[in-house]
Amino acid sequence: MSGKKFIKSIEREDVIQNLAYDLVIFGFNGKQLKILVLEYHNTGLFALPGGFVKKSESLENAVKRGLKERTGLENIYLEQFRTFGSLSRSNPEAMKRILEENGLDLIKHEWMLDRFLSVAHYALINYDEVSPEPDSLSDSINWYSINELPTLMMDHREIVETALQVLRENLEKKLVGMNLLPSKFTMKQLQQVYEAILGEKLRRTTFQRRLLAMGVLERHEKLFQGKAHKAPFLYSFKGKQ
Amino acid sequence: MSGKKFIKSIEREDVIQNLAYDLVIFGFNGKQLKILVLEYHNTGLFALPGGFVKKSESLENAVKRGLKERTGLENIYLEQFRTFGSLSRSNPEAMKRILEENGLDLIKHEWMLDRFLSVAHYALINYDEVSPEPDSLSDSINWYSINELPTLMMDHREIVETALQVLRENLEKKLVGMNLLPSKFTMKQLQQVYEAILGEKLRRTTFQRRLLAMGVLERHEKLFQGKAHKAPFLYSFKGKQ
Repeated sequence: MSGKKFIKSIEREDVIQNLAYDLVIFGFNGKQLKILVLEYHNTGLFALPGGFVKKSESLENAVKRGLKERTGLENIYLEQFRTFGSLSRSNPEAMKRILEENGLDLIKHEWMLDRFLSVAHYALINYDEVSPEPDSLSDSINWYSINELPTLMMDHREIVETALQVLRENLEKKLVGMNLLPSKFTMKQLQQVYEAILGEKLRRTTFQRRLLAMGVLERHEKLFQGKAHKAPFLYSFKGKQ
Repeated sequence: MSGKKFIKSIEREDVIQNLAYDLVIFGFNGKQLKILVLEYHNTGLFALPGGFVKKSESLENAVKRGLKERTGLENIYLEQFRTFGSLSRSNPEAMKRILEENGLDLIKHEWMLDRFLSVAHYALINYDEVSPEPDSLSDSINWYSINELPTLMMDHREIVETALQVLRENLEKKLVGMNLLPSKFTMKQLQQVYEAILGEKLRRTTFQRRLLAMGVLERHEKLFQGKAHKAPFLYSFKGKQ
């Protein structure tokens, strides 16, 4: 099935030139930390979801709009973390193939082959609550474990590595882990998120003591699993619904 | 004295459109945290040093080049912290006055009146080791205490506030304070840097115990001040020359 007729061209005059944004969308499936990767039609090219900023919209609104258009997702935790601006990050050949395979006019879209700086953002979502949908440019949008990523276009791998590093730094400072969990979770689930982000095993007793000492968790009823005397408590982050 | 004849025009084709960078350059004079502010010729307009990115250079090199050109400074600690992209951040009237007062052709430089996103960076320097010099666009470059800033152009005040917030977050994580001190310093000087950044007084005994426990300081000889029995020890950060 060809998607060509559904692709809208992007008018050069409508968007800021040489500037894009990219999104590293993290989800946690209970065991692994994953990110969303798009595959472009008939090219074998994998990339982070991203897009352009219209002249008439703020950067923030552009990113929210693009997130919705390219993945079907909205209202999720988003944080800008770095602007990538090396000269080597462009890849006009790959862009050309994507334009061709989507039936977009090469002359009219030549500006897309130019150099682009990219404002990178990361997003955090509760994996179970979302069903991402690919946009018309892409064959698929899929979750990939951060340890088993396909080869990504341009410097997208570096963008992912940087996002992960910032996520680790923000793990305690901003308690970002809460955005990857359901609103109520067990201590074991919380530990698994931390382990997936940090990429290392933690000692259960030490982890539990430290997290409880931070005073950010609220304890709720037990999670009923059949054996009531062994059931773990459920927790939530204070101030988060 | 008119600076008009010294101003070089900037060719539209040479730089990326709608994208700038700004610099929050922090220094510490032993008591207060200060930043460098430029005053444009005959306009009464105060602004952070900033500039454009040439099409032929990376973002990083553009920022280093601009830092040198606009302030005379080089080889200092620089960190990118956020890209500002709201629609309301432009101020074409103020830009027009700056162009006029510097004798730059308004038609040729009309692109400068357009909307700009700005990649903001902060820099940290040891106040005593530098003598900033204003560039040809500006009457002066001066240190202003962060508590006594003049009214700044556009959203530059917000950029400063955000830089300060990030600096506070990075105080322990990245030990950024070391870049504001001479290579050897007393515990009192270190505490004064922390207090200036955090904007609050700290308890001497608690501060000292906590910093020593971090294991990042190396103790050296005493600072001789005449009364040898009261002389404080000098410290340096491990791994920093």
